[in-house]
Amino acid sequence: MKTLKIPEATIIRLSMYSRYLSQVEERGVEMISSGEIAEGVGVSPAHVRKDLAYFGEFGTRGVGYNVGELQSHILNILRLNREWRVVIVGIGYLGSALTMYRGFRERGFDIVGIFDADAAKVGRELSGLTVRPLEELESIIREKQVGIGIITVPATEAQQVADKLVAAGVSAILNFAPCVLTLPPHVELRNVDLSVNLEVLTFNLGSRRKF
Amino acid sequence: MKTLKIPEATIIRLSMYSRYLSQVEERGVEMISSGEIAEGVGVSPAHVRKDLAYFGEFGTRGVGYNVGELQSHILNILRLNREWRVVIVGIGYLGSALTMYRGFRERGFDIVGIFDADAAKVGRELSGLTVRPLEELESIIREKQVGIGIITVPATEAQQVADKLVAAGVSAILNFAPCVLTLPPHVELRNVDLSVNLEVLTFNLGSRRKF
Repeated sequence: MKTLKIPEATIIRLSMYSRYLSQVEERGVEMISSGEIAEGVGVSPAHVRKDLAYFGEFGTRGVGYNVGELQSHILNILRLNREWRVVIVGIGYLGSALTMYRGFRERGFDIVGIFDADAAKVGRELSGLTVRPLEELESIIREKQVGIGIITVPATEAQQVADKLVAAGVSAILNFAPCVLTLPPHVELRNVDLSVNLEVLTFNLGSRRKF
Repeated sequence: MKTLKIPEATIIRLSMYSRYLSQVEERGVEMISSGEIAEGVGVSPAHVRKDLAYFGEFGTRGVGYNVGELQSHILNILRLNREWRVVIVGIGYLGSALTMYRGFRERGFDIVGIFDADAAKVGRELSGLTVRPLEELESIIREKQVGIGIITVPATEAQQVADKLVAAGVSAILNFAPCVLTLPPHVELRNVDLSVNLEVLTFNLGSRRKF
């Protein structure tokens, strides 16, 4: 039951630790301390220890964590111990950037279809995928058992695309369109606003200058 | 002093409230309740009240908040009561998407220069801006008093670009390259990893299914 109360900031950091552990694993390192993880990721050691403590004790005092075990534990927590099939709707610049983004595949996200309403884009090849018309969205989602839809269409078209994704049976939507979507409660939604990152930055700059 | 302890999640939500208040203001609404903000943004009313309470009392019980006052208060907190000049380095798909993104300008972020090391891209027009060579980065930053640099180059080039931005005098860097940057302490850094958003989604899906 405890996992229900984990703050989102912890989940975000776990995702960062895990990406760092992948790099460390590749170099053949077997044991790692919370201090080393903290330095590699750029957060405080107290944060690392606190975040990992949510999931019970799995380090050894004075010895640290076994890299492989810690990694597999975090991947389990994040449900990345399986493959997730993903579609992207809207192949403008942002949709193209996400299609080309190698980080997704490395983390178990397999983009199996990319879609656009613009007939001029349909048929183009991108990162081994062919842009398909929206009419094929539902059949591809069903056929390939797609769990996640990413929306990168303009705000005016986002709700309509979301409705199609939901009707076809996705469990979750990642929405980059700057609008509020209405979804049935069984579908998990996350809105990404790219300006927010700049605003956290200016807030931090302000705090820092003031004191 | 209090602002130093504000959790990042609160800052992110303030940014969301503020964007919603802009929409509401445009419709001519003068007063709004925390419940209405919560519904419009898709968070709980308790969150809205808690987040706004960090900054003192400025709503009236039973009446709600004056939209204009609340908006100007939040913009002050986020330091968006001024213009921020921004450069983007790396005009691939993601850099292009950010250059075209209208949300930045609406929030006071003015992109005044876009740069790429690839001579084939230099001179192209995008959203009223011309792609410039990296050699011009320093002079443009100084001349236009740019505060923020956005890095959208490949990981292998990101540190070098960051060093140039720092040498030219930016106060803050938003890094989309999947790597850890080393910066002097006076420069504020925020790393954006686009996979993190998918991982928060899969974590939430997992928690939801389990219980």
